[in-house]
Amino acid sequence: MPIISLTSDYGTVDHRVACIKGSLLSQNENIKLVDISHDILAYNLQQAAYIIRSSYKSFPSGSIHIICVDSFYHKDRKNILAKVDGHYFLAADNGVLNLIFFDIKPDYVYEITLNKRFDDTINFTATDIFVPAAIHLSNGGVPEVIGRPTLDTKETFFVNASYKASEKMIIGEVMYVDNFGNVISNIHKSLFEKHASNFESFTIKFRNIVLTKIFNQYTDLIPNWEQEQEYHGKSAVIFNDNNLLELTVYKGSLHNGAASLFGMNMGEKIYIEFE
Amino acid sequence: MPIISLTSDYGTVDHRVACIKGSLLSQNENIKLVDISHDILAYNLQQAAYIIRSSYKSFPSGSIHIICVDSFYHKDRKNILAKVDGHYFLAADNGVLNLIFFDIKPDYVYEITLNKRFDDTINFTATDIFVPAAIHLSNGGVPEVIGRPTLDTKETFFVNASYKASEKMIIGEVMYVDNFGNVISNIHKSLFEKHASNFESFTIKFRNIVLTKIFNQYTDLIPNWEQEQEYHGKSAVIFNDNNLLELTVYKGSLHNGAASLFGMNMGEKIYIEFE
Amino acid sequence: MPIISLTSDYGTVDHRVACIKGSLLSQNENIKLVDISHDILAYNLQQAAYIIRSSYKSFPSGSIHIICVDSFYHKDRKNILAKVDGHYFLAADNGVLNLIFFDIKPDYVYEITLNKRFDDTINFTATDIFVPAAIHLSNGGVPEVIGRPTLDTKETFFVNASYKASEKMIIGEVMYVDNFGNVISNIHKSLFEKHASNFESFTIKFRNIVLTKIFNQYTDLIPNWEQEQEYHGKSAVIFNDNNLLELTVYKGSLHNGAASLFGMNMGEKIYIEFE
Repeated sequence: MPIISLTSDYGTVDHRVACIKGSLLSQNENIKLVDISHDILAYNLQQAAYIIRSSYKSFPSGSIHIICVDSFYHKDRKNILAKVDGHYFLAADNGVLNLIFFDIKPDYVYEITLNKRFDDTINFTATDIFVPAAIHLSNGGVPEVIGRPTLDTKETFFVNASYKASEKMIIGEVMYVDNFGNVISNIHKSLFEKHASNFESFTIKFRNIVLTKIFNQYTDLIPNWEQEQEYHGKSAVIFNDNNLLELTVYKGSLHNGAASLFGMNMGEKIYIEFE
Repeated sequence: MPIISLTSDYGTVDHRVACIKGSLLSQNENIKLVDISHDILAYNLQQAAYIIRSSYKSFPSGSIHIICVDSFYHKDRKNILAKVDGHYFLAADNGVLNLIFFDIKPDYVYEITLNKRFDDTINFTATDIFVPAAIHLSNGGVPEVIGRPTLDTKETFFVNASYKASEKMIIGEVMYVDNFGNVISNIHKSLFEKHASNFESFTIKFRNIVLTKIFNQYTDLIPNWEQEQEYHGKSAVIFNDNNLLELTVYKGSLHNGAASLFGMNMGEKIYIEFE
Repeated sequence: MPIISLTSDYGTVDHRVACIKGSLLSQNENIKLVDISHDILAYNLQQAAYIIRSSYKSFPSGSIHIICVDSFYHKDRKNILAKVDGHYFLAADNGVLNLIFFDIKPDYVYEITLNKRFDDTINFTATDIFVPAAIHLSNGGVPEVIGRPTLDTKETFFVNASYKASEKMIIGEVMYVDNFGNVISNIHKSLFEKHASNFESFTIKFRNIVLTKIFNQYTDLIPNWEQEQEYHGKSAVIFNDNNLLELTVYKGSLHNGAASLFGMNMGEKIYIEFE
């Protein structure tokens, strides 16, 4: 049973998501539909990329992921099908696939040429282009039938965290704030470990806050579960399940978690100084 | 595999939607459930009608659509099953089907008489009436078994856009604001074309704004995609995928889109003057 | 087709819910996934318990319910599998099952010992513990294989409504506010009926409001449906579909319903005086 995931900035009120689902089921009633999220901020490719990157691997190999963020049709912009890491992705050529797979080379990228005849009209990219492409793939179809290989796609990149040798410092920034107010940075565990091994100690600095320890779990700051209550509201730094440095407040929420407590928004700098 | 869609104003926190889904699956585990939206504003039949009208056609013919908006049970109010345009609709007799299908005659309308015996108690219309009716239909049952034909249903209408010959003007109003802040009017392309053909030019007026061009796509205002960035925040008028006149701001959102920029709410007037 | 329901406080933006669904489908593509709610307030076990208690019975017997609220992994806290009332529940040992089933004895409770070998690392309780346990159950597996029986689980209780004989009064409190602003108390119909039978009349009191009638339906305050419009905004008390005393405003919403009209929040007292 082919699995098709949907990600969009269409919200959960309007008709758009229902139209996509109805169209898919009209053309193949055996597919399994899974929503990744429809609450992406309007046109926010960074947010979409972070969420898709963090979730696609959980799906079975061969799953088809439709990404409807910044995908309104324009004749001069390609729509693309990419196979990466064993999964299929359908999106407008707006750089989102680049953001998701900055470190993984696609098996292939095709420009979708469905509905490219001179008299085709496209009302809605999702149902007119992504849906028939997804259905074709769900039936085991090959990409050659619906597109042509392309190398010329839009490149967009996240700001990478980097090590500044002269200052013995990693400089990163906030790339996402989650539903618990956790602040997720772009500092990967591997970058940290590479440089930390050359030094004796490190200090994490942001705003006017200084921390010197990195945990592996949200609950690792609690040495003894009997005293768990005493740790509500305590802050900590962890490497999260994506191996990214994350600021967290134990039992925090979007309204009283790390983001609001520390006043940290997307793009704010985080430093790790070594000594 | 029968498809059942759900639309409600129950939100996504409470137990009501889960109760409906659990009940349906308890009675037929082979159905395919699709949410249209559960974020309809409390009792807002106009909003529900607009969203269902815009999405039901994407579903396969024969799909069953349960509408739980303003459907709390009262012994004096009918619950109805209508077959329209090849689809089944279950709703309270509150006028919502009328709003959806102001221009399409139903194949038939039945009053649902399930649970009408003197000793039946109805706790929750959705699970006590709509669910068994939907299951009956999903098993290929005929309406005669669960209801009786009725002609006497509540009539509610949207305000229609109209042409005023003495002023050579179409007068319409805002009927919906979507997730991108797009302002959707009740002026249909066919009404516009009927009158536009008799004149040389037209002017669209609302608030203190005047526009003279109607596009076919959100992106049609961008002549050259290389300069796409320059058009962020520019306003335009299009006929949307429902052929309704829509005010849009390119790359707008609910917070900085056409609705907030122009200050346009539901019910505000839009005029098209011909010359 | 095994049914697995999901309840969490993960919201609908982040990747967490998609990871759970993807993991489940990767391991058993024949399951049927149903969301109960992902909009539980962060760590709010009371809210989760109320919603799950109100909805699980609608699902087919044998359904598997995964509860991801306050479930971040800590080595000192158990994760448990309970079979209660014919359904399976997976949750952290945080008291939530106790809140749901304060009046129903579980058939059994197992500590899940999957991933308890010394070299196992748990990144995310949901996908590392609940998902494999759910898959095991969905394949007809027995609990012995994935856990060991336990009697030692955390006990948490709702505040119960109670009868105070000296004052001839039931004292209860608000335990939930729903999407329509309805205020749901912890006063069960059976407690009311037990004591009401000894008296001639009763008075419901909260804030400075006094009511003397309890209906069975949201619409029961309307004697004649022709005059339905006149009752918009009128308040009433009902025993709801969970047999709990509920304050309601006819056609109210979260913003202008009983909760905001009466200023009633979680924990506020409600009294029923008998005479």
